[in-house]
Amino acid sequence: MSAHNISQDDLTKNLVVDTERVTDELETLAMFSAVPAPAVTRVLFSDEDMAARAYLKTLCEELGLRLREDALGNVFARWVGRNPHLPAVATGSHIDAIPFSGRYDGTVGVLGVLAAFRALQAAGYQPERSLELILFTAEEPTRFGIGCLGSRALGGVLSVEDIHSLRDDTGASPDEVRKARGIPGNLAEVALEQGHYHAFIELHIEQGPLLEAQSLNLGVVTAIAAPASLTVTVTGQGGHAGAVLMPDRHDALTAAAEMALAAEDIAKTASQTTPTHDSVATVGIFDVHPSAVNSIPSRVQFTIDCRDTDLARRDGMVTDMQTRIAGIAEQRGVTAQVDVLNADAPATCGDVVMNACKRAADNLNLSWQHMVSRAYHDALFMAQVCPVGMLFIPCKDGISHRPDEYASPEDITNGVRALAVALHDLAG
Amino acid sequence: MSAHNISQDDLTKNLVVDTERVTDELETLAMFSAVPAPAVTRVLFSDEDMAARAYLKTLCEELGLRLREDALGNVFARWVGRNPHLPAVATGSHIDAIPFSGRYDGTVGVLGVLAAFRALQAAGYQPERSLELILFTAEEPTRFGIGCLGSRALGGVLSVEDIHSLRDDTGASPDEVRKARGIPGNLAEVALEQGHYHAFIELHIEQGPLLEAQSLNLGVVTAIAAPASLTVTVTGQGGHAGAVLMPDRHDALTAAAEMALAAEDIAKTASQTTPTHDSVATVGIFDVHPSAVNSIPSRVQFTIDCRDTDLARRDGMVTDMQTRIAGIAEQRGVTAQVDVLNADAPATCGDVVMNACKRAADNLNLSWQHMVSRAYHDALFMAQVCPVGMLFIPCKDGISHRPDEYASPEDITNGVRALAVALHDLAG
Repeated sequence: MSAHNISQDDLTKNLVVDTERVTDELETLAMFSAVPAPAVTRVLFSDEDMAARAYLKTLCEELGLRLREDALGNVFARWVGRNPHLPAVATGSHIDAIPFSGRYDGTVGVLGVLAAFRALQAAGYQPERSLELILFTAEEPTRFGIGCLGSRALGGVLSVEDIHSLRDDTGASPDEVRKARGIPGNLAEVALEQGHYHAFIELHIEQGPLLEAQSLNLGVVTAIAAPASLTVTVTGQGGHAGAVLMPDRHDALTAAAEMALAAEDIAKTASQTTPTHDSVATVGIFDVHPSAVNSIPSRVQFTIDCRDTDLARRDGMVTDMQTRIAGIAEQRGVTAQVDVLNADAPATCGDVVMNACKRAADNLNLSWQHMVSRAYHDALFMAQVCPVGMLFIPCKDGISHRPDEYASPEDITNGVRALAVALHDLAG
Repeated sequence: MSAHNISQDDLTKNLVVDTERVTDELETLAMFSAVPAPAVTRVLFSDEDMAARAYLKTLCEELGLRLREDALGNVFARWVGRNPHLPAVATGSHIDAIPFSGRYDGTVGVLGVLAAFRALQAAGYQPERSLELILFTAEEPTRFGIGCLGSRALGGVLSVEDIHSLRDDTGASPDEVRKARGIPGNLAEVALEQGHYHAFIELHIEQGPLLEAQSLNLGVVTAIAAPASLTVTVTGQGGHAGAVLMPDRHDALTAAAEMALAAEDIAKTASQTTPTHDSVATVGIFDVHPSAVNSIPSRVQFTIDCRDTDLARRDGMVTDMQTRIAGIAEQRGVTAQVDVLNADAPATCGDVVMNACKRAADNLNLSWQHMVSRAYHDALFMAQVCPVGMLFIPCKDGISHRPDEYASPEDITNGVRALAVALHDLAG
């Protein structure tokens, strides 16, 4: 029997994942950060991000993967299959990290893939279809205000015009920034055709408490929740904190505070309509002008991140928020402009990928359950290109986007093993 | 009759204020700003502040004033009197400007003094007591979080240890910053003895709407309201905006928003207990960590500026706020640390100064009323050294701390004339 014809049963017996190595690599990657450990800040195309990309490209080359980078900085590392003309099986995640976050979000789905490839190579496997690791550009919205920049563009959800309209805090566009980093190519060639890949699978920490609470090894994701992002600009009247009397005020900050509480209230109310409390809303950014202790704020700009597993309920929350915000603005004599930055539809995972994940888990004797992803991921937009699926592993206390985010080496290893077997299943 | 024996009646007939010059000087001073006109930002010991100080020192030298600078950067410009051993009559204000504020706050009480000195000199007056213009260091709390840094130290309210405990955003102390700017001297020698001056008088825009609404030329201030500044640090639990469900949240931002609304509510309620609505509270700064669109805020630090003309009512508001904040924190499962940065007592103006102001106004046929200052001023702390008083002039729509702050050349000229006559009265 030639090496490439290894059966799934034989593979599961011979699959050895180097847990220490993937743990070490996660630690090394966490050092590419703008803030001291244990916190991680790695913003798109920052010095830290560029250094981390270089590190990962080196690891890919050591594995013999063929590298390609598109004009947005999405990196593709291909393990060329025996039949290179067949659509490849893709897998991957992101390495950017929001300010003061942790070590595992995204990175487990990148370094975990390299660990899976290594284990598959060591077991003597040669894939029929090519296997391709993707490092997505900017899953996090930190720099350009929009999440999944790279996968949105790959999925054709974000046009070249959309990309050109984005700006970072310094007023720079993605095109200017990537060129300044020496990334060549044509933005018009970033989008992938439907069917470009046979399947896409993303390994990720759960970012929620369910798997840990039930002592399960894996989650097989069935759907990814639908996020909407709003920016609200409240304009009132500034003035001296001592001299303008309370009845004469049109304070932008207290108006915005009332709006933030309204958004929280709407999400709390909506979340009570489902036993799984799927509705959430978060005010994460709240910028005040002029921001002086003795000056009444004249302007506040804040964001609302609103998600649900059900699109209609999510859109209902957004509508309710717009109504409440307008009412508060009118009552307080301020203006409030609401901009909907994005309002994505949820994605349903593909049977071919979910089935491969379930077979892999069963064959490896790993416990699992179906679940929805409340966080959103690059898989959401890769669903425009091919059937997608996600494998979740437990994380401590459900914590994510914080320095104390943690996934155990055992849980990571289980995820890598399941990913390897599922990739073997999908690539043949 | 020798020139210095000029009577008040003769002076009022011969007093000519160069309105165009003081208007031009206000415009020139506004150009020393970190932001484009019409907004003004001039932070203590910034490049703009240092350039503005140099400009004003030149103007003082042109008038033959004797310059002194203390170790905190308070500048004293003395018109030496015929009897230099008598306590001088002091006057002055500040030239620092909070971010994105206007052209008249403080500066009218500096350039207006130079205009008054010029008019007195042109009228042939020679004062018996020395007249001293003071440029106070950092009336605004922008850099070190505490208002009236210079006059607090002069009044002995702020000890050398207190000064050393202050830090700006970069972690630098006032002592480090002033030395870096080449300002020599001993901080222990800044405080003035009681009786160092015969009197202090400050000319200022009202920063409120009362004079304009009643078409009055001047306000003769009887008392300065008592300000308190609180910093509230709310610590909750951060996390992923998609993955942490509403019932599991301990969001620092929504907790802080509720606290800000409580502070507003307390001030509104207290302000209804007086016909003049003297109680105010303002949340001017509201800093969020980590400040990402998809991250639940784990920490918010905000300020409350709370003022009243009545000390007991002001202290009652502060106590109510502390109680309400603690209750909200407990109910939401977050912690809230409240630091009272300063809680100053109100000042009562001295009869000798108020009477001089009223006589001057009457002699010049300017309409006036008694009023309290709701904003606080360097005069509040100069009251520790000598009897103080303030002359208010109208400002457009009561607006201050905004780029559209405005006082008319006519109103400024009236204020300068009244100041000149009052200084003549006090200095003999």
